[in-house]
This record gives sequence, C-alpha cells and structure tokens, in this order.
Amino acid sequence: MRKIWRNVYNWGDPEKPIDKTIEHHINHFKHLLGIDGDRHDLPLNANAQQEVKLDKKSKLTRAALKDLMRFVGSDNVKVDDFSRARHSFGKYYADILKMRMGKVAHPPDAVVCPRTEEDLIKVINYCNTKRIAVVPWGAGSSVTRALEADKGGIALDLSVHLKDVLSLNAEDSTVTVEAGILGPDLEQYLNERGYTCGHFPQSFEFSTVGGWVAARGAGQASTGYGRIEDLLVGLRIVTPAGVISCGNYPAASVGGDIRHFVLGSEGTLGAISRVTLRVRKYNAANSILKSYMFKSFEQAVAAMRDMMQSQVYPPHFFRISDPEETEIGLGMKGKDKGITGALLNMLGFKKGGRSLMYAIFEGDPRQCKLGERVLGKFVRRHGGLSLGSYATRKWLEQRYSSAYMRDPMMDAGIRIDTLETSVHYSRLVELWQAVRAYIKSDGQTLCLTHISHTYETGANLYFIFASPMLLKDELNQFEKFHRGIVETFIAHGGTLSHHHGVGRLVSPLLTKQHSPATLEAWRAVKKALDPKGIMNPGALIF
Amino acid sequence: MRKIWRNVYNWGDPEKPIDKTIEHHINHFKHLLGIDGDRHDLPLNANAQQEVKLDKKSKLTRAALKDLMRFVGSDNVKVDDFSRARHSFGKYYADILKMRMGKVAHPPDAVVCPRTEEDLIKVINYCNTKRIAVVPWGAGSSVTRALEADKGGIALDLSVHLKDVLSLNAEDSTVTVEAGILGPDLEQYLNERGYTCGHFPQSFEFSTVGGWVAARGAGQASTGYGRIEDLLVGLRIVTPAGVISCGNYPAASVGGDIRHFVLGSEGTLGAISRVTLRVRKYNAANSILKSYMFKSFEQAVAAMRDMMQSQVYPPHFFRISDPEETEIGLGMKGKDKGITGALLNMLGFKKGGRSLMYAIFEGDPRQCKLGERVLGKFVRRHGGLSLGSYATRKWLEQRYSSAYMRDPMMDAGIRIDTLETSVHYSRLVELWQAVRAYIKSDGQTLCLTHISHTYETGANLYFIFASPMLLKDELNQFEKFHRGIVETFIAHGGTLSHHHGVGRLVSPLLTKQHSPATLEAWRAVKKALDPKGIMNPGALIF
Repeated sequence: MRKIWRNVYNWGDPEKPIDKTIEHHINHFKHLLGIDGDRHDLPLNANAQQEVKLDKKSKLTRAALKDLMRFVGSDNVKVDDFSRARHSFGKYYADILKMRMGKVAHPPDAVVCPRTEEDLIKVINYCNTKRIAVVPWGAGSSVTRALEADKGGIALDLSVHLKDVLSLNAEDSTVTVEAGILGPDLEQYLNERGYTCGHFPQSFEFSTVGGWVAARGAGQASTGYGRIEDLLVGLRIVTPAGVISCGNYPAASVGGDIRHFVLGSEGTLGAISRVTLRVRKYNAANSILKSYMFKSFEQAVAAMRDMMQSQVYPPHFFRISDPEETEIGLGMKGKDKGITGALLNMLGFKKGGRSLMYAIFEGDPRQCKLGERVLGKFVRRHGGLSLGSYATRKWLEQRYSSAYMRDPMMDAGIRIDTLETSVHYSRLVELWQAVRAYIKSDGQTLCLTHISHTYETGANLYFIFASPMLLKDELNQFEKFHRGIVETFIAHGGTLSHHHGVGRLVSPLLTKQHSPATLEAWRAVKKALDPKGIMNPGALIF
Repeated sequence: MRKIWRNVYNWGDPEKPIDKTIEHHINHFKHLLGIDGDRHDLPLNANAQQEVKLDKKSKLTRAALKDLMRFVGSDNVKVDDFSRARHSFGKYYADILKMRMGKVAHPPDAVVCPRTEEDLIKVINYCNTKRIAVVPWGAGSSVTRALEADKGGIALDLSVHLKDVLSLNAEDSTVTVEAGILGPDLEQYLNERGYTCGHFPQSFEFSTVGGWVAARGAGQASTGYGRIEDLLVGLRIVTPAGVISCGNYPAASVGGDIRHFVLGSEGTLGAISRVTLRVRKYNAANSILKSYMFKSFEQAVAAMRDMMQSQVYPPHFFRISDPEETEIGLGMKGKDKGITGALLNMLGFKKGGRSLMYAIFEGDPRQCKLGERVLGKFVRRHGGLSLGSYATRKWLEQRYSSAYMRDPMMDAGIRIDTLETSVHYSRLVELWQAVRAYIKSDGQTLCLTHISHTYETGANLYFIFASPMLLKDELNQFEKFHRGIVETFIAHGGTLSHHHGVGRLVSPLLTKQHSPATLEAWRAVKKALDPKGIMNPGALIF
C-alpha cells in the first residue's frame, strides 16, 4: 500500500473502484444537496495523494524501542510516520477532516503489535514501569476520538497477531477467540460450522471482537441476538494491576460484575486479550425478510413497540426509517418517481409521512414464521402495509456500504456524519422531533433517521446528517453543531450514546449522564487497575 | 405478635397451623430419615417459647437515638430486644439454629425505619459522620449471613414504610417502586393492571424489590422473564458519597455500568431507595403447564439444553428434578407406590434413574403453543414421555411451600439446608455427580437436586440436603460440611452461588471466584462510595 494520506483514512481499499450502487447513492445525495461534481478546491483534499509526514518525531528513546522489540520481535514495533498516523485517529468525521488536511495532533510514538497474551503482559508491565502511555487499538473504527495518543506512547495494535479462534464449545454454545480477530474472520469460522455470532456492527469488516467489548457495541441484529454485553460470556483483560479473568459461567450472584466495567472501558483499564462469546445455530435458508410501509413514523414505532412487548420472539434485525430516510431510500432505489411512490401516495401513504419498516427473522423456521405472523398483525393494527421482501433484501445487500460512501462524499465537499442515542418509548417521538428541529435549523442539512436497535422499553435513534461543507472554519463549526445534537439528546431523555461509546468526543457531557458518585466509582476502579494512568489517558473521564 | 424466640425466626405466621400438604411432606421426610416424632429434647428447641432477651445492650448513645428519632420519627427507631434480634439474622440454617439456642452474637444497636428517601439520606449521612455501622434490611430472607451487625450500629428496615408503587409506565413497560415493597404487593398491583413482574424467588412472600437487586437474585421463572439484572431498568441508591441515580434507558454505551456493582452489593455500598423494573403483560389463562419424564437425568438435561439453544422462546419456568428428588417428589405425592410408579418402571423409566421435567409457558398464547410443540419434539428425541400437566400444577400450587417446611423439620431434629451454583452444560453432570458424592459420603443424607434456572450456555444446580441433626456440635459440623459443598462447586467449574449471593457465608472463597485485580476494583468502588466503611461492614470482602 502506498504511504499516502488517502490510505490512512480511507474506508476499505482505496485502490478498489467504488461499487456502482454506492456511486448511484452518492450522486443522489449530491443531487439533493445541489452539489455538482467534486470539490477538489477545498483545502481538505489538498493532501490526499501526498506522502504521510508527521511534524512530531517519536519521543520513545532508543533503549525503550529496543526493550519493546525484545518483547514482541523487531518486526512488531513500528515508528514510521505512516503507521503512527494510521494509529492516531478513528473514523469520526472530524478525524477524517483533519487527516485530509494532514493534521495529526497526537500520534503515538510507536505502534506495537503483540504476538501473544504473554507479549501483551510484558509490554503493559513495561509501559507501566516506565510510565509510557498505551492506547489499545483494534481495527481503528472508533467514531468517538477514543484512539488519540494525547500523551504519545504506544498504540497497541491487537489485530495483527491476536486473531485466532481458540475453541468452539458446541455443548455450551460458546466460542473463545483472541481479542484482535476481525468480524468477518470470526463469522466465517462460525458459519462453516453452522453457527453465527450475530454481532454485525456497521464497522463489521474493520472492527475486532475486543473492540466490540471495549466500546460496548451493538450490531445491526442486536434486537434478536443481543448487544455485545448479552453475547459476552467471559474475557481476559491485561491491566497494569494484573490480568483479570472473568465471567465464564451462565449467570451468578457473586458480588459486583467487573465485566460491566470492562464493557465500555474503551482501553482505559487495560487491553482485552481473550473473549468468550455465546454463539447461535444459523442457517441462512431459514431467514424471513419482510418490509412494511406505514403512514407515519409514529404508527411504525407503535407497531414496533407492540411487537417488542408481545413476548413473541422479535425479528433479529428490526428497523424503521423515518419519513426523510424513507424518501431518500426510495429515491436511491429509483422508486419515488416510479409506480411504487405514486401507488403508495394513492393508498394514503403520503410522501413526507410514510415510514418504512424492515424486519428479518432468523434461527428456528417455526419461530420465524410465528414472528412474521404476529408482526403482520401489529402492522395491520397500525395501518401498515406489507411490501414483501424487496426493500429489506436490498438493505441487507448493502448493509455495510454506507461506510464506503463517506470518503467520496467528502471528496465532493459534503459534510456527513452520524450520531445515535437511546430513549424509552414514551419520549422517543419527542426526542426525534427535537433533534430533527435542531439539525434542520441551519436550513440546508439532510437528516435521515432510523431506529435500528429495539428493546421492550425503548429503542435507539440513529441520525445521519449531511450538508455542504463550509469553505471556512468547517472543523470548528461542525464540532459546535455536533455538540448541540448530543445536548439535545440529553435534554429529551436520551443517552449520550447507544452503541458508539464516549471516547474523547462526548466525555465532557458524562456528568449529565451519570451521578457524581458514579463517576467517583469509575475513577476508583481506574486507579485500582491502572494506578499510574497509562491506559488510554484522556479517554472517558480519565 | 408475642415477643418469643419462635417469632424471631419462624417463616410466616407461627400462629397459623401448618398446611396439610406441607405436613404430609414433612412426615415423608421424617419417614425417609427414620425419625419418629419431634425431638424437643434437642438443645436447639429449648428457647422457642421463651421471651427474647439479648445479652448485649444497645451501645447507641441517648443523643444518637434522639438524633435518629428526629430524622425518622420516634416510632421508627426501635431498641427493644425482640426488634434487634429479629433484624440480626437471615434464614440460613445455622442462623435459625443459633436463634433456637437464643444466641445472637451481633445484634444491631437499633432498628431504624425510614419513611422516605429523604429520611434515608439523613440517616446515612448522620451515620457516616458518626461512624455508625448501617445494615440495610429488606425482609430478612438472606441465606448468606448478609444481615449480621458485626459492628453493631443500626439495621435499616426499608420494608416498613418504603413500599409504594410510584408509577406504572404502560408505554415503556416499566414500573417504579420504593425499594422496600414486598413481592406479593408489587405482583398484586401489576396483576390487577394486566402485568406481571415475573420475579418469583422462593422467598417471594418475604423479600423486597431492593433485596432482590442487592442480592442479585433470580426467580423461579427466570428462564422466561430473566434474572433481576435483566428486569432492572434503573435505580436510586443512597450511599455515604451521595445518591446514585442510574439506568433509566433501554440500553447505552456510556462507559462502565454502575448498576452491575449495585447488583450483588448486599448493602455494602448503600441502601437502595427506588427501583424501576421492566414488566410484562400477563394473563394466567394463557399459561401452558407441562411435565415430562426421562429415563435419566442426563437425558433430561440434554432435552433442556436443546430447547435453550433452539432460538425458540423457552418456557418461563423450566425445571428438572434429579432422580432422588423425582422419587421423593413422587413419594410425597403418593405416586411411587401406586400405578404411576409401576407403569413408569414398566415403560423403562426406572426408579433411581428417571427424572422429572417441569415447564410452564406464559405470555402470548401462540408463542406458548409453539414452545410446547418444540419442547415436545426435544423430549421425544431424548426418550422422554409427556405426563400431562399434573406434576407441574402440583408444583406450582406449592411453589413457596418448602420455606414453611424448615421450622417444623428442625423441630423434629432434621438438619435441612440448600446450596446452589451455576455451571456450563459441558460440566453440569460432572458437577452434579461430584456434589452428590460429597453430600452422600456421610452415609445418611438425603440429597434432592434440581435445575431451576436455565440459560443457553448452562444452568444452575440447586441442592437440598437433609439429615438427622447431630446431638453434639451440630453447628460446627454443619458449617464444615457446608463449606465442603461450596468447595466442590469451585473444583468442578461451578460458581460460589447462582442467586443466593455471598454475604459472610461464602465470602472467604471469593478469591477462588474472582481475579485479585477484580477484588481490588471492588475495594476501590467500596472506598469511593463508602469511605468510612459504615455500610454492612464484614459482608463480601469489606
């Protein structure tokens, strides 16, 4: 791979031509935003093809590098500018913006790739002794600024070597893996043996199991398979205070559950080395794909709520696009001008109100059929209409594609990012309306919203917002706008995040989410496990 | 109520005559253990009808009592011996034994009953300032010595006043209660409105919602409704470091989850004042009751495992009695001598091997029917036989009765207690056999075992053991025997406890369950929330 800036931040292989469907979607967005062609005049594209050069030289001493090489082998300690740049940021819009401008404020001094848990223990112990900061790094898909090396030190890349499946226990229905394994590798291993992990975040292709746990993530099928905390059985985490091995039982009452402090710890307590997850039997042929149209977002949510509270096994994937996303979705599929849009209008499913629901039932075929039947009943109760499987099949085919859209959209001068929250049903519509009002207040922003993770008591709301980049001060103006969205979440009963996490991005608002004594407890755990504060300093409240 | 020792420890109203069915069961146990009549000669019964007198006088100063009375009202501070004795123990066998002998080593100096959360805050702040120990007290059903006042101080009885339902939110499917509400009061409130909480521990009648959370409990229907941590949405806990309000969202990625340190904290971090739980729609008429017989325990477990890993909604109540419990159960129902036992023998379901499975499906009637159909298939696959609903209906009728059996059994000189663990399927049979071998090694102990809480990866094992009391040294010999059982759990991959908790009973073995760094994290949280160590000192590792 050429060591140019584009290759630092690009999602996927930048040499690979853009998929036709994705290109079509991008053109649709450009059209909606009145943007014609690419905007190579913007300063943000200036460096794309330039070789990566960092202003900051590595501050690690030659002796320290030699020690680290002794622990992990000389090939596994990297100090070149490209490696350091690549391990200094995640995939937050502002991250990419900075990369495009060649700005790396906080690169790590080195990238270290442990080969075994033993290597990991040696490296963390050493860094603890020498007070060298350590930022655990999975596959770099954080969107919360969780991967910045504020204090230099090392980025600990777990995805290079720690990626074996250690065991599949069919009797217990569990799999144990090294934490650096990527989603597709794990899923392929399991599929070949008739199982699935069921965890499919948007970042699936470029995220690790350890990262899923550290960020307390949720996949697209979390409604049926559960969030990562539901899938997590046991883990091992290497902390400066020693290795914690925990879980590995079906359930217990044995005091506080440390797993729930490791979940969402985002590298601030240690580096996760091994994870045991629950798996489930899987046969793709059993899946039932359904899509439904509603006359309003509110009616779609009511049908979803009825299903979730019915005590019938819900769809594994269960989504609703709000009216704006529905319309753009139809547009991208070339349907709003065609017969479907017109027919729907005629039937009272009017543009601007209508909302599309997606459902996929997986697992046992009898359970799938019952789920479909019961959901169908709730859909009809709330005035919805079955559209067959088409929309959901299309969505499934491109389930990971939106991540590939950002780079070319930014090339075209489009600001595009996402934010997400969760909220109880009783305040869901209120929150949705308030956030839309805020986002729309600047006059030219598209706001596509969906629900993609559903519970008995509420759901998440996922907002995608896109507008033409500003010629001046884009970074600061964007960050101000972004903060305002999160503040609107909090003001209307939403959480700071539903599955993206906190990092350095929304951490200033943590005091609005948690009681002071809760944060004191966090600080205490941090102090106990990482007394010198070497693990990901600056993330969360640490 | 007369202030005699019997009234301190008796389960339920001691004036109420024993139910005929329970009496029949007790006689069956006596028969099996070769015990004829009651054993009023044993020292352990000497004090039953005597007035409660404590050796230790309350050490609280008059000024402190006056201050406490100022906070909660004079009626709500009690220093009489009966109140102090009643709040000094739980329902562990050794507790009752000591009570029967009039031994109260660690009574609280006073019992304080706050009327509001404000009262609670004042009392805890005051006790923190004055370094007075505080043992939060729900309804006293702990079986882990979690309620002893090692350092005197106050028992904080939350069940007297803090028992209101604050709100039912039908849209969110949640109920918010004061922590001292008893199970039946909550359930009645919900049932009248078409809902159920779904949490039915054995101690249901004499346990509080706050206690369920503090002990990280699980109810008889946890397989379908979930454990208390699955039902818990949000809570408020008053700690010396301030009030923590947490949860109250469907799910989130906002750092460590303090709820999982409050769950299982057993009063060591603070007193829980309010709890929000998920509720579910309920109509008793929908329930399907089933029982099945298997030729062996192993086959019954295999069928249960298949059901739990099928991705079909499992039974809400899902139990297996091992061969010894099955036989005693049949005997208690008068069936082993009759036609059923003989017929089963003839069909190859031999006494000593055969194991009874109980299943109750609740909630949506279509889901119930599917569950029954799928379970039936797995039962047949593993050579099981449907016995209709009789055994399960009988079990359901007496679901809380066994707690009423202990007092009259101890009157008759029978030692009877229970211990429980959880384990993955791959080691379940091994653990069951090892524990049975240990329990049976003394030659005259009945050992009834069941699985009552089931998961995709494993299940709990609940052991009931009964033998004639020893005339000499019963307490010490029992405790030694008891410890050996828990050590056998650990040696075979089991947990210290599945839903009873830790208290002061199994806490010496916590180092075998958790990594040293985990316990350091616990100590750190304790120090942060209760820096002076006033909350339930001596429980867990604190």
